[in-house]
Order: sequence, then C-alpha cells, then structure tokens
Amino acid sequence: MSTAAASNAVAAADFSAAERSAVYRAIFERRDMRHFAGGTVAPDIMRRLLTAAHHAPSVGFMQPWRFVRLSDAAVREQVHALVEAERLQTARALGEREEAFMRLKVEGMRDAAEVWAVALADGRDAHVFGRRTLPQMDLASAACAIQNLWLAARAEGLGVGWVSLFDPLALARLLGMPDGAEPIALLCIGPVHAFYEEPMLQQERWAKRCALDDLLFENRWGTALQTPPPADGPEDPAP
Amino acid sequence: MSTAAASNAVAAADFSAAERSAVYRAIFERRDMRHFAGGTVAPDIMRRLLTAAHHAPSVGFMQPWRFVRLSDAAVREQVHALVEAERLQTARALGEREEAFMRLKVEGMRDAAEVWAVALADGRDAHVFGRRTLPQMDLASAACAIQNLWLAARAEGLGVGWVSLFDPLALARLLGMPDGAEPIALLCIGPVHAFYEEPMLQQERWAKRCALDDLLFENRWGTALQTPPPADGPEDPAP
Repeated sequence: MSTAAASNAVAAADFSAAERSAVYRAIFERRDMRHFAGGTVAPDIMRRLLTAAHHAPSVGFMQPWRFVRLSDAAVREQVHALVEAERLQTARALGEREEAFMRLKVEGMRDAAEVWAVALADGRDAHVFGRRTLPQMDLASAACAIQNLWLAARAEGLGVGWVSLFDPLALARLLGMPDGAEPIALLCIGPVHAFYEEPMLQQERWAKRCALDDLLFENRWGTALQTPPPADGPEDPAP
Repeated sequence: MSTAAASNAVAAADFSAAERSAVYRAIFERRDMRHFAGGTVAPDIMRRLLTAAHHAPSVGFMQPWRFVRLSDAAVREQVHALVEAERLQTARALGEREEAFMRLKVEGMRDAAEVWAVALADGRDAHVFGRRTLPQMDLASAACAIQNLWLAARAEGLGVGWVSLFDPLALARLLGMPDGAEPIALLCIGPVHAFYEEPMLQQERWAKRCALDDLLFENRWGTALQTPPPADGPEDPAP
C-alpha cells in the first residue's frame, strides 16, 4: 500500500483517550470468577462474546477453537462430577497445601448461567504454518480466543471462570469428541454478585502478584531491563 | 461478602455503552501485523503494555510469563537468522503450498520498533493447581497475557505480530534461558503504516475466516447449537 494511504489509515484508526482507558479498564478489572449469581445470558450477548472469541489471532489463521454449550442439566451434572473428582485428586497431589486448597472455591459450574466447553478441533496436523517446531501454538491461539471472550464479558458486566480441573480424555468421551479433538477449558459464564477487587487467589492468600520488573529481562535471561520504564504510570493499577 | 455489598459493587462496575464499544473495537480491529514502520515505542507506553500482559489470568495464579527485550542489534540479528532458517524449513514442509507461503511476509523483526521474546519460566513443575491433568495450562495463561498486550497495543495505535517460526531450543540457548524455561513467542511491536483491514492471511487468500456457527455445538460434539443466537448483531463485524 502507498505510504500516503497508509498514513491516512493510521490517523483514522486512532483510539480516543476514553476508548483507550476502556480497554485498559476491561483488562485490569477482568477476574477469574468462581462465584456466580445464576440468572441467564441473553442470546445476543452470548453471540457477541463468541464473536469476540472468534476474532482472536490464530497461528496460520487456523481458528482451532470449538465451543460446546452445556445446556442439558444431566450433561452439566456429569461434567461437574468430572471436575469434582479432579478437585480431590489435585488436593491430594498438593501435599502440604491440600487443606488450603480444599478451602478454596475452585469452580462455579452449578451457579453460572452458562457453561461452555472449549476444545481444539480435530484435524490440526494439517496446519504446519507457525507450528512445525511449536505445535502447541494451536492451544495458544485458543487461549487468546478465550481471553477475548473474557474481556468482552467483563465489558458486558458478566463474569467468566476458566476451569481446568478435569481429565481431558474423560471429558472428550463424555461430549462425543472425535479423535484428535482436545478439551482445554470449561468456561463458567454469567451474572455475578460482584467482581473480586483483586484476583481471588490473592484475596485468599494462595499466591501474590509478582513484581513486574522481576519478569523483565534485556537481551539475556537474568539481565535486568537496562532502561526500566517508569513505574506507577497512570495505567498501572493496584494491586 | 454480603449480598447488599455485592449488589452495590455490580452497579458501580457497569461499563458504559461507549466503554463496551471500545473494548469490542480493540478486539475486532486488532491484527497480527507483519509490516511495521520502524520508529520507537515510548518507555511509558511499553510499560503499560507489559502491565496489561501481567494482568492476564493464570492457572493457580502462577504468572508463568517472562519477557526478554531484544534491544541489542546483534542479538536481534541472531534471532532473525533463527526465524529465517525456520521460515525455509516450514516452506519445505508445506509441500504444494511452499510457493504461496514463500510469497507471504511472515515476520517484521527488522522493521518493528521493539522485539520481545516471551517465555514460560523455569520451575513450573511446582505448580499443580489446575495443571495436574492439563500441564499445558501455563502456555494458555501466557497466551492470555500476550493477547492482553496485543489489545492494549491496538488501543495505543501500535501493531503487534506474534512470530512462532523458530526452533525453541536454539532460541532458549541464544538468550541464555535456564533448563525448564521455554520460549513461546517473538513479539514484534511498534508503529505501523496502517492496520490490515482484515487478517493479512485472509487478504492474501491463504485462509478464510470460518462461519462462527460451524464452530458451535450443544451438549455433544457435532450437534448444532439448538438456540442459535441472532446472527449479524450490531457487534458482529465484517469480515
């Protein structure tokens, strides 16, 4: 494209300060919810969330994501049983943190208005672009789709929780997935009484947010960023 | 928390229609960029992008993401050579699509203002919560972080491209990563002449966006959604 046309396009595409703030607000106020308030999600809103997910980036534009709505009470109950079984297995595997883990609310499947299973499609081996050395990029793409849905839901005032406490083979079997398809998430979606003020696992003192600067290196692992950007900018939220 | 307090929190947390639209705008106008306009990214903006990434959800709040800025020209050139080598390998692996692939611009490492490697930290085995049966959830979390950064960058008027054309072991070695750390992305970040109007791989006819309804099932894989939400809502963008 010509540079002149390109410059115009850039100018037209600028976000206003208010729009920019709204995007950061969704990012900073999004929470991984475990407490839901029942209710329903209107079909047009659910459609918007799924459309947002479908506009995620994907490696080689392969769009590996598939979404299975669990609307049948019996199916949801069977899936919940899988989650409950894995919750107990995880607790045992945690050793000395078993009791602390068992006190946490780790899923909201019975209270959420909607539960959707997200899976990677079968037939993914055909997609080589960007995956020859990193085949797991299909999962990365699907995770971006879920993050899109999550942020859109926050903007709609709806909570989302990503539950990964399940045996993927058992869930695939339960939902009739073909060979090669792979469930990666159970998403609880719906109205909440309130969004946690900080990540629930931080509120419950399970873990603390790391200092950002500890995660940044320059040119070589372990070498601190040499020109650390200013801390506590206006967009740097607490906590 | 009490229901009364919770209700207040919900009311206070509602996004305005304008804020909601801004979030969808970032989601729908974000592009995986390969064409960059050089320039620089101001440190405070770069800090905001990284802060957005760091506020992604993570399984068990493990925050597995690490970011390595490639500011040294020699390092960047060495990393570019890895990408170029993998580009040729991928082309060969694509067989009959080799020529079409070679015509694509698949990375913008030399033109982007900033290049950052993103990696999963070492020592991840200690994190069992949500990963006993799905250990790859650490990658999913890091992908959510990258998607946050991507959307924030779009709102800042900056392009981002996720390059996954590299040998992860070679890149880990080059950047001095410890055993157990795993690079997952090379992010090109910076000013662009223009954002693609649709995904570049669709513009170049490499792939087309799937119809959303083909990706949605109800209760069982292959069973179409029984109550399909209305198509072409106001938030359903073309293409």
